[in-house]
Amino acid sequence: MTRLRLDLAYDGTDFAGWARQPGLRTVQGCVEDALAQVLRLAQSPTIVCAGRTDAGVHARGQVAHVEVDAAIDLSALARSLRGVLPDDLSLLDVSIAPEGFDARFSALSRHYRYRVCDDPGSWDPLLRREVVAHPRPLDIEAMNAAGAALIGEHDFAALCKPREGASTVRRVLDLSWTRGSAGHAEMTVGADAFCHSLVRSIVGVLVPVGDGRQSTVWPAEVLASRARDPRVTVMPPHGLVLEHVRYPEDADLAARQEVTRAFRGPA
Amino acid sequence: MTRLRLDLAYDGTDFAGWARQPGLRTVQGCVEDALAQVLRLAQSPTIVCAGRTDAGVHARGQVAHVEVDAAIDLSALARSLRGVLPDDLSLLDVSIAPEGFDARFSALSRHYRYRVCDDPGSWDPLLRREVVAHPRPLDIEAMNAAGAALIGEHDFAALCKPREGASTVRRVLDLSWTRGSAGHAEMTVGADAFCHSLVRSIVGVLVPVGDGRQSTVWPAEVLASRARDPRVTVMPPHGLVLEHVRYPEDADLAARQEVTRAFRGPA
Repeated sequence: MTRLRLDLAYDGTDFAGWARQPGLRTVQGCVEDALAQVLRLAQSPTIVCAGRTDAGVHARGQVAHVEVDAAIDLSALARSLRGVLPDDLSLLDVSIAPEGFDARFSALSRHYRYRVCDDPGSWDPLLRREVVAHPRPLDIEAMNAAGAALIGEHDFAALCKPREGASTVRRVLDLSWTRGSAGHAEMTVGADAFCHSLVRSIVGVLVPVGDGRQSTVWPAEVLASRARDPRVTVMPPHGLVLEHVRYPEDADLAARQEVTRAFRGPA
Repeated sequence: MTRLRLDLAYDGTDFAGWARQPGLRTVQGCVEDALAQVLRLAQSPTIVCAGRTDAGVHARGQVAHVEVDAAIDLSALARSLRGVLPDDLSLLDVSIAPEGFDARFSALSRHYRYRVCDDPGSWDPLLRREVVAHPRPLDIEAMNAAGAALIGEHDFAALCKPREGASTVRRVLDLSWTRGSAGHAEMTVGADAFCHSLVRSIVGVLVPVGDGRQSTVWPAEVLASRARDPRVTVMPPHGLVLEHVRYPEDADLAARQEVTRAFRGPA
């Protein structure tokens, strides 16, 4: 068997998220079924991804791996997969995974972008599936000042949906808001990993600072409480895009996998 | 009565084009009906636009005008219109039109963008409604070399759907292909005006140069023939976006209107 690396992009609008669920249209289900179809497998293979996006969340740089029969023609496989994948899901690349590569456990960091349009005069109907409308203008500087408190290693229990037995400690590597070319407020954020709904909760705790409903220190206070705060809105999924996933140099892939597994425990 | 200028953006996917047609969902129909609804008019007013886009063609900078009762609260009108317009059609701005302004006849030029993805490895499902896929790689330099022959004033009869009694002479002000940030081949083109399907025919005559099926001089030969050439493909509408419309300084609006009307005859 050979491990393949798959680079994927999708419009999350019509998917019930990444993870396969019986009876629902999911990204994982579509890719696994497409692989089974083109490789003529009796049973769909299991693919593992770097970032299990929620329903409605998009990706421009999702990474996954899958085990296949060693005797495979990569370019023929790419052509066949592209022929059967639906319009809203695309295979950007397929390659032989280097030794020690695991899409989930070898990843160094995940990088997301969230976009908000805070001015009806710059609302672009062509981008309505990936930009969230907000009725009040946002102060980018205030959101950056408040967001700085979230950078670094913290227990994000206040901003996560908790999962039995799993740590809510994460390391946020960078977080910044800018005015995008179309005039939208754009947040980019990178972390070693994100717990469930963390990015959307981070946006939900910064937007009220941006529009003046909360002070710049409020997000730090919420974080410090380490308890879910009902005042924190989990923002809508469609503003969120998984932009890319970083991996170490090939020589360090296996070591990274071990570190991550030890820290986060079994999947 | 007062003339208003409306700045509009739309995702053309689900519109049967700009022009109102009985029983079809059109941009003009939607805006006129929305105006009638919020202004409580018994009959929909008639709006006039700068670029009558075809079915499936998008706009980020469409401009239109309409006559309304003089006693109007502009910001209330903007709010109300935004409340009733559908998701895929947005009012960017509404203002009192300066003296002599006519959305169609005062315009100096229309500027369009057409996008083609020529690499399956950079296909972005989130942009599939505004980017056309092409199966072969495109040579930007070759398309620019060929496109240069179309710049200037020409009789574009070879690249237009003819209209009884109307001139097919147009002045192309600029035309260039670049590699956009997402890796797509992007053409921007500006002209005093475009006859029906001209932009899509221009793309249709340049893409075969870009992928090597035709020589760089072919588009000039097609143009010189002044006759519709069956080898010219009218490219799909969804790659096309009306990006903006240029108008002269306010003092020159009326004079521009007269020049255009004299040249192109009555609408």
